[in-house]
Amino acid sequence: MRVGMIGLGKMGLSLTKNMLDNGIEVVGFDLATENVKAAEEAGAISASSLEDFVSKLGSTKTTWLLLPAGAPTDATIVKLTELLNKDDLIVDGGNSNFKDSLRHNKIVTEAGMRFFDCGTSGGQSGARNGGNFMIGGDDADAFNQYLDPIFKLISEKDGYLYTGAAGSGHYLKMVHNGIEYGMMQAIGEGFDVLESGQYDYDNEAVAKLWNHGSVIRSWLMELVEDAFSDDAHLDDLLGRMHSSGEGQWTLQEALDSKVPTPVIALSVMMRYESMRNVDANFTGKVVAAMRHGFGGHVVDKS
Amino acid sequence: MRVGMIGLGKMGLSLTKNMLDNGIEVVGFDLATENVKAAEEAGAISASSLEDFVSKLGSTKTTWLLLPAGAPTDATIVKLTELLNKDDLIVDGGNSNFKDSLRHNKIVTEAGMRFFDCGTSGGQSGARNGGNFMIGGDDADAFNQYLDPIFKLISEKDGYLYTGAAGSGHYLKMVHNGIEYGMMQAIGEGFDVLESGQYDYDNEAVAKLWNHGSVIRSWLMELVEDAFSDDAHLDDLLGRMHSSGEGQWTLQEALDSKVPTPVIALSVMMRYESMRNVDANFTGKVVAAMRHGFGGHVVDKS
Amino acid sequence: MRVGMIGLGKMGLSLTKNMLDNGIEVVGFDLATENVKAAEEAGAISASSLEDFVSKLGSTKTTWLLLPAGAPTDATIVKLTELLNKDDLIVDGGNSNFKDSLRHNKIVTEAGMRFFDCGTSGGQSGARNGGNFMIGGDDADAFNQYLDPIFKLISEKDGYLYTGAAGSGHYLKMVHNGIEYGMMQAIGEGFDVLESGQYDYDNEAVAKLWNHGSVIRSWLMELVEDAFSDDAHLDDLLGRMHSSGEGQWTLQEALDSKVPTPVIALSVMMRYESMRNVDANFTGKVVAAMRHGFGGHVVDKS
Amino acid sequence: MRVGMIGLGKMGLSLTKNMLDNGIEVVGFDLATENVKAAEEAGAISASSLEDFVSKLGSTKTTWLLLPAGAPTDATIVKLTELLNKDDLIVDGGNSNFKDSLRHNKIVTEAGMRFFDCGTSGGQSGARNGGNFMIGGDDADAFNQYLDPIFKLISEKDGYLYTGAAGSGHYLKMVHNGIEYGMMQAIGEGFDVLESGQYDYDNEAVAKLWNHGSVIRSWLMELVEDAFSDDAHLDDLLGRMHSSGEGQWTLQEALDSKVPTPVIALSVMMRYESMRNVDANFTGKVVAAMRHGFGGHVVDKS
Repeated sequence: MRVGMIGLGKMGLSLTKNMLDNGIEVVGFDLATENVKAAEEAGAISASSLEDFVSKLGSTKTTWLLLPAGAPTDATIVKLTELLNKDDLIVDGGNSNFKDSLRHNKIVTEAGMRFFDCGTSGGQSGARNGGNFMIGGDDADAFNQYLDPIFKLISEKDGYLYTGAAGSGHYLKMVHNGIEYGMMQAIGEGFDVLESGQYDYDNEAVAKLWNHGSVIRSWLMELVEDAFSDDAHLDDLLGRMHSSGEGQWTLQEALDSKVPTPVIALSVMMRYESMRNVDANFTGKVVAAMRHGFGGHVVDKS
Repeated sequence: MRVGMIGLGKMGLSLTKNMLDNGIEVVGFDLATENVKAAEEAGAISASSLEDFVSKLGSTKTTWLLLPAGAPTDATIVKLTELLNKDDLIVDGGNSNFKDSLRHNKIVTEAGMRFFDCGTSGGQSGARNGGNFMIGGDDADAFNQYLDPIFKLISEKDGYLYTGAAGSGHYLKMVHNGIEYGMMQAIGEGFDVLESGQYDYDNEAVAKLWNHGSVIRSWLMELVEDAFSDDAHLDDLLGRMHSSGEGQWTLQEALDSKVPTPVIALSVMMRYESMRNVDANFTGKVVAAMRHGFGGHVVDKS
Repeated sequence: MRVGMIGLGKMGLSLTKNMLDNGIEVVGFDLATENVKAAEEAGAISASSLEDFVSKLGSTKTTWLLLPAGAPTDATIVKLTELLNKDDLIVDGGNSNFKDSLRHNKIVTEAGMRFFDCGTSGGQSGARNGGNFMIGGDDADAFNQYLDPIFKLISEKDGYLYTGAAGSGHYLKMVHNGIEYGMMQAIGEGFDVLESGQYDYDNEAVAKLWNHGSVIRSWLMELVEDAFSDDAHLDDLLGRMHSSGEGQWTLQEALDSKVPTPVIALSVMMRYESMRNVDANFTGKVVAAMRHGFGGHVVDKS
Repeated sequence: MRVGMIGLGKMGLSLTKNMLDNGIEVVGFDLATENVKAAEEAGAISASSLEDFVSKLGSTKTTWLLLPAGAPTDATIVKLTELLNKDDLIVDGGNSNFKDSLRHNKIVTEAGMRFFDCGTSGGQSGARNGGNFMIGGDDADAFNQYLDPIFKLISEKDGYLYTGAAGSGHYLKMVHNGIEYGMMQAIGEGFDVLESGQYDYDNEAVAKLWNHGSVIRSWLMELVEDAFSDDAHLDDLLGRMHSSGEGQWTLQEALDSKVPTPVIALSVMMRYESMRNVDANFTGKVVAAMRHGFGGHVVDKS
């Protein structure tokens, strides 16, 4: 088997190595030449341009993208439809919004090829050693013939699922991440209560305990355990919670469906809150001004 | 009529002047002598100690407290029960928790006097020029005979209500403040959206507009209008939202009654969030550590 | 002055009567003939079709829409651009999303006319007796020449504001409604706590009190007072909170700007929650299943 | 080793069997004689009264309670201090509030015995086959000498932790449950979005997938998988989320520490919301009345 891989960053390179370990040949391309070199050193066939990449695919039908969502994925898919052959497969393994994937599916299908949207979970270690995949795509036969054998090799046992219609893979990954946001915020809040409370706990020991038979045993708690083993009170970190978008998309989807998702909503909002300078918080300024207005209460001046 | 006023700070002094304007004699006491002096200059009879205060009350039955909730109010009530006469009235006009007021009611009643818990709204300007009062107390006859004539003089028209059983005045004021928290946070969030959006509004003009016939016309919006007229983007303020406790009490009462109050809950929590250094946010540290753990995502280091 | 009014429902008819009272001639059109008849009875010139409507406008430059947002407004604006003359004014007084208004502005401007997006607050009574308006539109001169004299007549004193660029009127109305959602939910929660608590309050008397000098004095509280005067415990109403969309749009705008708006978010979500059959709540089913799974806890069966 | 077990319900009986399997003798008592009989059939020594129970303990120092929190635990602890000997150990393995445990610790210590508060996680299956325990208690030596050997036998590997000062075990269990509430609500919301969305997923297959290598792999997701395998859309369940109290306690503790915990707060509130008849939702009635008041919007009548 041979796969063409576009995007050889953290995730793409890990997945390439995973494929190579499992006897899959990989043709690799990335705009950053050092990423191509790293893939070559790992055993991949390197390509110097998208044209070179396609020429080296031979009769390989499967092209795999692990690119940033948005413009990079958009542009690459359009270009690929000009270079690939009829019936070839394009798998978008990145974090695209499912609405973009529906648009990509139309473009690819109209060009005579097949499109699959593949949500990838399991982090870098999963990509490297056995990942978790949720795959949508209208052509079930093509999935079974060309992709199923690949996913069997690169996934954690029972770690992939073909979910049917185009867009459904990225939709499911989106909701997965919405749940992830809520679980992470819940765990964070719990340790925040512990850290602010009257008892002095060993955070690492607590996380370790909770991973051995408690109801909240989870991979996320294992990651917390690792983090506390490195830095008992996370003194080296700032409390800023970056985000990439899937949590917000889940919330927007919930609004469109009129499904109340307060926990996911608040998880997203606390991320945004954490990225602001608290003293510049405009809501806070307005509230402080009102309190001063009616009660003469103290305000903090800049 | 004569009233004994204990606590001559912002609120107590304003209410004293209001009473004096309306022909009520006031005997004033405060631990801070400059506060006593200010009351004396306004026309009150000053007292140098609680004993002196009681001696100057003569046959006056009504003692009024405007003290910080908690220990100062607690201690003063206990001491007053030792100094006052049977059937005298103690009005707690401060922001006591209604559970404390129930306790105070027991202490005062067992000492043979009558207790009234009086929630005071309307801010400083209300205290000075016509306030808003919600008054609980078990002895309705004593309310009608001694207090009703006073409230009629010092309140905004239709601005006081006898609410019945002891504790019910402070309970109602607590819920009033819970609503106030939610309204303030909603207004703050709205202006935050405006300030972060794509249009460039004149905040003062917007607030003024909304006070003239819109659905969200309100006293709080008038205060916002004043604040923006002083400082168009509130550059001089920091976004820290102090709080005194009634919002949290409302939330605790809601929990005890199993009433869902998400908006009041979040209003309280965003106040706490605004008082923290965002970089020290422990929830955020834990979440950042997890994101780094599974995805190698960037974390901000201290 | 003469205005062409399209949409003679609750709001359009009220505004028509307001204009007529103030000496403005109104040509009225509505797809529902009984609405046209009602306008005619009020003194308006009636039209039987959009073409008839335009012919009766004469040299009148100002057409005003009070239609449901979405398809009805969309279609009418497109059709008007085919029927009206160069430089004519189209005022969308409905609750359109500001993104639609930006699109409408492009369509109308490219057809050579001028577009104004007008958010209308103040409810039906405001439309009838003096409303509250926030108006965006790129052509400030046209606003000053043609619209300002009209708004002066039909608004509450100080109750209109020209906010500049196209879209800014509906954007401001959107945020106004977001604030409104939060304030309403806060007020609702407060009375819910009262109703579930240990004291027995007279809800109408409480709302009336709070409208006379308290910090939470507001038009919304006046409406609550009216409602309780009709039905002391609102026994005749079901607790379903319908919504029209502006709250959700404010939330989506906040997400796009990464502004945390937890109170507006929860206000929207509690509306959706209130529209569901609580027993069919799928989140609840999943949570109940987990509780049963780990603890053997009771589940309620259908 | 011998342990006296009081409370032989779901959890107590499971733990008794666990102990018996591991060679620990158990003297069992419960007010319900059928529970005592079940324990006897499992191999425990049965007692017919608390006095009989104590007499059969012999020199056994360790008494273990698995009773409902509140009055039953309170009364039993007080009675035990009258019946047990100096230096005996009382382990409260139930879900007591840590503030009650601090009170119990005082009572027991003043009677000359030692108190341990033991949070028990892992559900019934854990109690039966290897549980998860977090144990507080002021006497570390007594823990090491008498309890550590027992916990080693009855716990999941690495599944217990001595957390130090009295109360710290139940405090940690409380926070554990707070996190659990948040995680459960997040998972529930995610499946609610899936169920309401445009794709038709196999819920069981999705949960199974997410348990094999995804970031949200967790015991709770395993329970969801089981539940969907029994009932693909949980049609047999009503969406009512009962609760026992620890989530609310975590929230109250967060309020006392001024730690913002929005996700835990909303998890608790959505449980309360789910237990109400949505049509009787008083917040909703008030909001509906306001909407009707300003906009003439539809209200649903009972």
